[in-house]
Amino acid sequence: MTWDGGAVRFLDQTLLPNEERWITTRDYRDVIDAIRRLAIRGAPLLGIAGAYAVALASAAGDDVPAAAEAIASARPTAVNLRWGTERAATAADPLKEARRIHDEQIAADATMGALGAALLPDRATVLTHCNTGTLATGGIGTALGVIKTAHAQGRVTRVIADETRPLLQGARLTAWELARDGIPYDVIADGAAAGIIARGGADAVLVGADRIAANGDTANKVGTYGLALAAAAHSVPFYVVAPVSTIDPGVRGGDDIYIEEREAEEVLTHGGTQMAPVGASALNPAFDVTPASLIAAIVTERDVLRPPYVTSIAAMLAAASPQAVTR
Amino acid sequence: MTWDGGAVRFLDQTLLPNEERWITTRDYRDVIDAIRRLAIRGAPLLGIAGAYAVALASAAGDDVPAAAEAIASARPTAVNLRWGTERAATAADPLKEARRIHDEQIAADATMGALGAALLPDRATVLTHCNTGTLATGGIGTALGVIKTAHAQGRVTRVIADETRPLLQGARLTAWELARDGIPYDVIADGAAAGIIARGGADAVLVGADRIAANGDTANKVGTYGLALAAAAHSVPFYVVAPVSTIDPGVRGGDDIYIEEREAEEVLTHGGTQMAPVGASALNPAFDVTPASLIAAIVTERDVLRPPYVTSIAAMLAAASPQAVTR
Repeated sequence: MTWDGGAVRFLDQTLLPNEERWITTRDYRDVIDAIRRLAIRGAPLLGIAGAYAVALASAAGDDVPAAAEAIASARPTAVNLRWGTERAATAADPLKEARRIHDEQIAADATMGALGAALLPDRATVLTHCNTGTLATGGIGTALGVIKTAHAQGRVTRVIADETRPLLQGARLTAWELARDGIPYDVIADGAAAGIIARGGADAVLVGADRIAANGDTANKVGTYGLALAAAAHSVPFYVVAPVSTIDPGVRGGDDIYIEEREAEEVLTHGGTQMAPVGASALNPAFDVTPASLIAAIVTERDVLRPPYVTSIAAMLAAASPQAVTR
Repeated sequence: MTWDGGAVRFLDQTLLPNEERWITTRDYRDVIDAIRRLAIRGAPLLGIAGAYAVALASAAGDDVPAAAEAIASARPTAVNLRWGTERAATAADPLKEARRIHDEQIAADATMGALGAALLPDRATVLTHCNTGTLATGGIGTALGVIKTAHAQGRVTRVIADETRPLLQGARLTAWELARDGIPYDVIADGAAAGIIARGGADAVLVGADRIAANGDTANKVGTYGLALAAAAHSVPFYVVAPVSTIDPGVRGGDDIYIEEREAEEVLTHGGTQMAPVGASALNPAFDVTPASLIAAIVTERDVLRPPYVTSIAAMLAAASPQAVTR
């Protein structure tokens, strides 16, 4: 995602890996549309996109508070989206603030990459879910940024990528990034992960986060919780990698996190073809909640948090400067 | 599946739910091909198909022992396939024996349906994986047979059907059977099950089995083990429903069960479209193993087995008549 002569330019991720189509727009409503249909996705990138969308609204002379509310509501579970949107909307110069958010994310990803890689053993096979790379953050990524860093250090030699139904961010996006970076990988059906972990097939599991509660409970792409249960059953460390901005200290625990329900269509179709019977019904929660008790560490750009998270999260937020807290 | 004037007639399940195409053949090699490409699938139906295939070889004057070995090897993890094949191959009249196996399965399904339904609470929502219905057994089914029976009794009011990647037996076949029987259902992505169970969305989980070891460890469609972990984490009973012929007392435990690895293509394609990057690699284990400790009961046509299974399985097999033991 870039700001390019008064317009926002972004890759339509729904068309990857087969087509790399860039969209350029000066209308914030196009950004809302792209967020809704997941052409722009990934928690940190949503924050950047929200901020750039506010800059577009501001440049076009639109009603900025109204635009900001519409942008922030495009995906209700995504705390980063609201955070980036509001930060730009309340800044004197929304564009300057959007660019700052973007630069901060690039720096944060690099730090998380280094901190997270240090947790992994040598020559590890790691398992990951959804896409948490450049396509999700604008930097090297969160969980996938750790994997890239660890691969460069020789710590990670192979990646198992959950395909991540229904939208296949793993098969489409993570596989695309891994292939571009020359990191060996295997795609698996989501249901195969538990059996592979049981047979010793993964040395660690690394995932991102969409929202982290004050107690460490973590909302992330649907399928994450099942992975955490499988990792716990076989004493495989399960790491969450996410910027501090993903932590929502106003949410006490996972039960208070709203789970967005998306359209049944996504579940009933595969590669554009409906596979279920005509008239079939579906449930399609976008996220699930992994309880803090299953998480070995939460890697942020400021620190590697360890249980009990109620304490470690509060301490980290309290220790930070007032400006950093709002990040 | 039927025997029809010297030929075997079966539905090509790979084309469901959109097309009901029946295949009629007098060549046992066509049955092997259908088994390999999952046009015929489901543990009990594989036993029936194997027996009918032997009857075809016998009628055609082929080398029956050689044909039987080829048939039994078409899917190495499927114990029922070898069992049905060998039973027909060693019978004086292979066709008569194949028909007897089929009739026994219809009766066994009805009994499992009644025994299993009695375990469920009133007005339950149950979650199931893969397809274990008529399309899998030739009777009313195993786990899905229990669900149909319980629905007729008012015990089951709604079904959650895992889509069951990679081959989508849940979205395609289970949904098709449920729709035909007028049983309300929702299809879900496999990764959504754990979160739905965590939020109280399922009162029981019911699955079939491809092979059950002497200690109760159960090999079933990939994704089953993760479901069992989620059910255990939330004290939701997890039931295995399978005919006695699925039990392989020669296999001591899950570690001794061979896990068939299928083609990467199945994982990399969706609805016939490749979704992962060109050249992507995949792992595709067909099964996983659920340890006996996670299974609340194993429902067979002879008895509802309870833990410890080492004891209850041995007692059931010992109590049976010599003829029944070989079933």
